[in-house]
Amino acid sequence: MTTQAGADLEQRGIDVIRGLAMDGPAAASSGHQGTAMALAPLAHVLYTRVLKYDASDPAWPDRDRFVLSAGHASILQYSMLHLTGHGLSLDDLKQFRQWGSETPGHPEAHTPGVEVTTGPLGQGFANGVGMAITERNLRARFGTEVCDHHTFVIAGDGCLSEGLSHEAASMAGHLGLGRLVVVYDDNHITIDGETELSLSDDAPGRFRAYGWDVDEIGEVANDLDALESALNRAKNVEDKPTLIVLRSHIGYPSPDHVDTHQAHGLAFSAEDIAKTKELMGIPATESFWVPDAVLATYREAGLRGSSARSEWEERNTEDGVATVDTSFTDGWAESLPVFESGTKMATRKASQAVLSALAEVVPGLIGGGADLTGNTGTTMADFGVQSADNPAGRQIYFGVREHAMGSILVGAAKHGGVVPFGGTFLVFADYMRPALRMAAISNANCIFVYTHDSVGVGEDGPTHQPIEHVMSLRAIPELRVIRPADATETAGAWKLALEASGPSALILSRQDLPVIDSSSATSVADGAYVISDVEDPQVILIGTGSEVSLCLESASALAEQGIASRVVSMPCWESFEDLPLAEQDVVLPPELPTVSVEAGITLGWDRHADLAVGIDRFGASAPGSTVLSELGMNVDNVVSAVSELLTVLDQ
Amino acid sequence: MTTQAGADLEQRGIDVIRGLAMDGPAAASSGHQGTAMALAPLAHVLYTRVLKYDASDPAWPDRDRFVLSAGHASILQYSMLHLTGHGLSLDDLKQFRQWGSETPGHPEAHTPGVEVTTGPLGQGFANGVGMAITERNLRARFGTEVCDHHTFVIAGDGCLSEGLSHEAASMAGHLGLGRLVVVYDDNHITIDGETELSLSDDAPGRFRAYGWDVDEIGEVANDLDALESALNRAKNVEDKPTLIVLRSHIGYPSPDHVDTHQAHGLAFSAEDIAKTKELMGIPATESFWVPDAVLATYREAGLRGSSARSEWEERNTEDGVATVDTSFTDGWAESLPVFESGTKMATRKASQAVLSALAEVVPGLIGGGADLTGNTGTTMADFGVQSADNPAGRQIYFGVREHAMGSILVGAAKHGGVVPFGGTFLVFADYMRPALRMAAISNANCIFVYTHDSVGVGEDGPTHQPIEHVMSLRAIPELRVIRPADATETAGAWKLALEASGPSALILSRQDLPVIDSSSATSVADGAYVISDVEDPQVILIGTGSEVSLCLESASALAEQGIASRVVSMPCWESFEDLPLAEQDVVLPPELPTVSVEAGITLGWDRHADLAVGIDRFGASAPGSTVLSELGMNVDNVVSAVSELLTVLDQ
Repeated sequence: MTTQAGADLEQRGIDVIRGLAMDGPAAASSGHQGTAMALAPLAHVLYTRVLKYDASDPAWPDRDRFVLSAGHASILQYSMLHLTGHGLSLDDLKQFRQWGSETPGHPEAHTPGVEVTTGPLGQGFANGVGMAITERNLRARFGTEVCDHHTFVIAGDGCLSEGLSHEAASMAGHLGLGRLVVVYDDNHITIDGETELSLSDDAPGRFRAYGWDVDEIGEVANDLDALESALNRAKNVEDKPTLIVLRSHIGYPSPDHVDTHQAHGLAFSAEDIAKTKELMGIPATESFWVPDAVLATYREAGLRGSSARSEWEERNTEDGVATVDTSFTDGWAESLPVFESGTKMATRKASQAVLSALAEVVPGLIGGGADLTGNTGTTMADFGVQSADNPAGRQIYFGVREHAMGSILVGAAKHGGVVPFGGTFLVFADYMRPALRMAAISNANCIFVYTHDSVGVGEDGPTHQPIEHVMSLRAIPELRVIRPADATETAGAWKLALEASGPSALILSRQDLPVIDSSSATSVADGAYVISDVEDPQVILIGTGSEVSLCLESASALAEQGIASRVVSMPCWESFEDLPLAEQDVVLPPELPTVSVEAGITLGWDRHADLAVGIDRFGASAPGSTVLSELGMNVDNVVSAVSELLTVLDQ
Repeated sequence: MTTQAGADLEQRGIDVIRGLAMDGPAAASSGHQGTAMALAPLAHVLYTRVLKYDASDPAWPDRDRFVLSAGHASILQYSMLHLTGHGLSLDDLKQFRQWGSETPGHPEAHTPGVEVTTGPLGQGFANGVGMAITERNLRARFGTEVCDHHTFVIAGDGCLSEGLSHEAASMAGHLGLGRLVVVYDDNHITIDGETELSLSDDAPGRFRAYGWDVDEIGEVANDLDALESALNRAKNVEDKPTLIVLRSHIGYPSPDHVDTHQAHGLAFSAEDIAKTKELMGIPATESFWVPDAVLATYREAGLRGSSARSEWEERNTEDGVATVDTSFTDGWAESLPVFESGTKMATRKASQAVLSALAEVVPGLIGGGADLTGNTGTTMADFGVQSADNPAGRQIYFGVREHAMGSILVGAAKHGGVVPFGGTFLVFADYMRPALRMAAISNANCIFVYTHDSVGVGEDGPTHQPIEHVMSLRAIPELRVIRPADATETAGAWKLALEASGPSALILSRQDLPVIDSSSATSVADGAYVISDVEDPQVILIGTGSEVSLCLESASALAEQGIASRVVSMPCWESFEDLPLAEQDVVLPPELPTVSVEAGITLGWDRHADLAVGIDRFGASAPGSTVLSELGMNVDNVVSAVSELLTVLDQ
C-alpha cells in the first residue's frame, strides 16, 4: 500500500518527468515530447516498482532488460536514467540532441542504462525477442543462479506496422517465449495524422493469432496500480509472450496538444510548456526542475536491486571476475579444423565443418538459419532445437524471417553471454539490411552467415543471385565483411569474427572451391595477403572468395604468355584497411598495376585496383558454372583484361 | 455442367501439367516440382474457368492479373502459358532454367504472360496489392469501359512468413481492397522441414485481424468445382481482399514424396517420375508429353477472353492506338516549375512543388509517403485520398510500411496505366531494399522519393542519418539514382524520372539549399555538367546534392588562394556513364585532377575522383549544420583536401 504522501510524491515525480520531457526537446528545439509525456506513469512504474536493476551497475548481467522500441521518446528514458542515478546528469539532459552528448536523438547503446540502440521502427521490438530468447536459453543451461530476469519493451503503432514486428512476434509466439512483456502504446496517432488514415488492424486479434497472451488494459495510462499489476501479471507468464495494450493520449496533459499529431514531433513552445506545467502544479517557467524530494525517491528506487545484485555477484564472481564464461572455453581456437589442400569443398560446407567443430568449445554459439539451415551450413544438431519444451536448445529455426533473424541476433548479442549467428542466402541480406546497420551502429557481436554468394548460385536466376551485395555490405561502416577463398580461409574467417568486436558477415560459396595449397587461415585477419608470388611481378591479381582460384589459374595462363603476376587474396577489406599503410604497401606495392576479380559489381574496386573485372548487370538463370563463365568470370577474360591494362600502361 | 468426357479430359490435362512439372526440373536437374504438382488443379481452374485473358495478346491492359508469389513453382506457370498458347513453346519448357531461355528459375516479367518478376518471398503478394489498388483506382477514374478486372495471387507459407506480407496485408485490409484474391497454399512444408519447426501462426485469424475475408476451403486441392466456386465467390467480394486457405499436399500424387520437404526443391529421379506418371496413367517414360486433345482444350481456353478483348479494343482504341492515356497529357513537361535563383529551398520542398505542378498534367501520378507524407513532400491533397470510399483518390497513405510501399509501387508500375511514387527518409530505403531490387530487375517505372538525405538530418542522430545509402543505391544495377543540387535540378530530376524507363530514386535534402544561378534542369539528364568554370582550371570539384553549393563556396575560397577550379554538378551517375566517353571527357577532362565532395561514404568515388571528401563513419545527433561541419562538410576541409591533392601531384 502506498500512503497518501507517497502517492503525492509519486505523482509529483511523474509531473517532473513530464516537465523534463518538454524541457529537453524545447532546449534542443527538436525532439518528441508527446509519447514521453503520455508514458511517464508507465516509465515511473517500471523503474520504481517492476524492473530489477541496480543503477550503480547498469551492466549487471542479471538485470531486467528494458527496450524503448519507440526510440523517438528517448527523453523519457534519459529522464528515468538521470532520476534513478544511472550516471546521466541534469547537464546531460540539457545537452539533449547536441554534439557529443550522452543524450542523442534516439537511444544509443553507449549510454549507460540503454540496452540497445533504437529508433528505426520495429527494431527494439525484435531486439527484445532476441534478449528474451537469450535469457531463457542461458537460464535453462546455466541455472537461475546465473540468469533469471525479464525483458520489457515499449512499442508504438509504428513498430507494430513494420513487417519486422510480424516476423518477430510470430517467432516469439511460436517459441512460447515467456518473460517477454511488450507494452503497445496505442495512441491512435502517427506522424501523418490519426492512425485511421492508414491503419485499421485489430492488433490484439493479430497477436492472439501468433499465440501471444494479450491484455487489453485500456484507459489506465495514468493509473499506477493498474499499470503495476498488469506488468507483474505479464512478467509471470512463463509460456508465452505478453502484449499489454495500453490506450494512451499523446501529449497528455498538455491542454492544447493532447491527442494531436503535432504533439508527436514538434517541440512545444515556451507558452505550451508553461501552460502544461501550470496545470500540473509545478513551476511554470523553470526548466529542468527536479526537486530534491523527488530526486531522492528515484535515487532510492534506483538501488532497489542492489542486494539482489550483490548476492548474484557472490554466487557468480571471484575477486570481481566472473566464474562462468558462458560464451567461450579456454583454448577454443585450437579446435578450428584444418582442411586438406587439393580437395574441393564449398566454403558454406567448410563453414558448417567449422561451426560443428566449435559448437562444443564455444558454448555461446547459438543460432541457425532462416529456413535455409542445411543450405547455409548453420546446423548444430547435437545441441538441441530451441523451443518452449527445450529452452536450452542452441539451434534456432528462424523460419522465413530474415529481418527478425538479424534483429534477434542484435538483441542476443547486446544481451550478452552468447555469440549469436544466423544464416541465409547472400541475396536476402537485403531483407535484413536495417538489422545489419543496427548491428554495426551498436557494435553488436554477431555473425551473419551469407551463402550462395554470386551468380554461381545458378539456376535460381537473377532474383537469387547476388551482384551488388558484397560491395553494399562493405559500404556499411563498422561491419566486417569476410569472403574467404577456400575452406582454410573459412576457418580463419570464423576465428576473426569470433575474436573481433562488432558484427561480421561471412560471404560463402554455394559451389565447390579448391582448397588452395598456399591459403592461410591466420592471414585472414590481415585482410589481404600474397597467396602466390613470382620474382619481379609485372601485375597483381586481387581476388576474393571463389575468384581467388580463378586468379591463380589466370596467373598460370599469364605465365605461359610470359607475364609474371602475383596473386593476392583479399578476404576482408576492413581488416586490410586497418593495417598500417606500410604493411598494405608490402602486399600491394603502389608501383605495381593491379587487376581485381570479383563476381559482383566493380563499383568500389577502383580503390584497390587499376582495372576491375566484375559483373555490372543482373545475373541469369542457368547452371552456375555457365553463368559465371558467360558473365566473364573465366581465365580468358581475366587474361585479356590484364593484357589490356598492361598495354595501356605501356603506352 | 461438365460432361464425363469433359471431366476426364480436364483430369488428363492436370496429369499433363503434373508431368511437365516433373519433367522441367528433371531436365534441368534443378527446380521445384512439389508445389507445381500440388497446385496443378488450381492453375487449371484459374486458366480454364476463372481468369479473364486472351493468350493471343498477353499485354491486353484489361486482362485479369495473375501473380505467382511462390515463384519457385515457376514450372507451373510456364506449363500453363505453353498450354494456353501464350507463346511459350514446348522447347521453351525443355530449356527450363537454361542460359538465355524464356523459362528461368523464377518467373521474370519479360516472359509473355508473366506479370511481374517473383521469387524472393512475399514480393508477389505485395505486388498483387499494388495491382489491385491500381485497377480499382483506374476503374474509379476512367470507368469500367476502360478498366474492369481482378487480381489473383498464389502465396505460400514463405510469403506469409515474410514481414512484407504483414505490411501489404494490413494495407489491403485497411483499404478494403476488393477484387484481390490470394490463395494461400497451406502445405505445411518449408525448406527446413515441416512448418511446425518454426511456424505456428493462426493465419486465418491473422488475416481476419487485418479485415480480410477469409475462406478456409480445406482439403479440396483436387476438387475442380470447389476451387472454381471459391475463386468465383472471392472475386465477387468488392469491399475487402480475400484469402482462400487451401490445404495442399506438396508433391502430390508422387507415391514416395508427397508431403515431404524433399519434394520442394530436389528434382525427382527418373524412377520417381516414372512411378508417379504410371500412377496417373500417363506414359511413364515419355518426357514433356502433351497429347493433342489436351493441348487443343487448353488452346481453346486460352482464347476464352478474345471477344471481351476485341470489344475492349473497339471501345478504347482507334487504329490500334489507345484513345485514352491514363498516365500523361500532351506537353506535361511544360508545367514543370521554374525556381528563382538566389532564394533558398530544401530540395524536398522543391520536389513537393514539382509534384503539385505535375499532378494535374500527369494523371498517372499516384502515391504518397510512408507516414512521412508532409516531411517527404509527397502530398497531392487535391486529388483525394485513396480509400474504399474514394477509390479514385490518388494520394496513398502508406503508413509505416516502407517495404510494402516499395513492392506496391512495383506492382502498380507493372500493372500499367499509372506512374507510382512513394516517399520516405533515405535511411529507410534499407527497409525496402528488396523491393528496389525487384523494381530494377523488372524495369518497373516507379519513382522512389528519398528525403533527409545526409547527416544534415541533424538531431535524430545516426540511426536516421544516411551515410552509405546513396552509394548503396548506386550499387543496384538498373536503378537510376538522382541527387539534385537545388530546386532547379529537382525539376530536372522529376523530368528525367518520368521520361525514363525503369525505376528512379530521387535523393533530396531536408535542409534549405541555395537555388544556384547556373544550375540547369535540362542538364540533369546528362548526369553531370559544368556548373561553374574558370579559364584553365587546375582542379575540378565534383559535388552532388547539397554538396554542390559547398563546392561552389570552396571554389571561391580556392580562388582567393590563387587556385582556379571548375565545379561539376553530378546529379546522376547512371546518366553520366551512359554518355559517350568523349562527352564525359568534356565535363571531366582526364588530365585534370578531381576532388569529389559528397556527404556520404567515399567508397566508389575513386571511379570519378582522385580524392574523395566524404563521411566514412556513422553520424551523430546534433543540429544538422553542426554535424555536417564537424564531419568535414565545410569549406576549410574541402580547400585543404584540394591543396593536399595538388601538393601530392606536384611532387
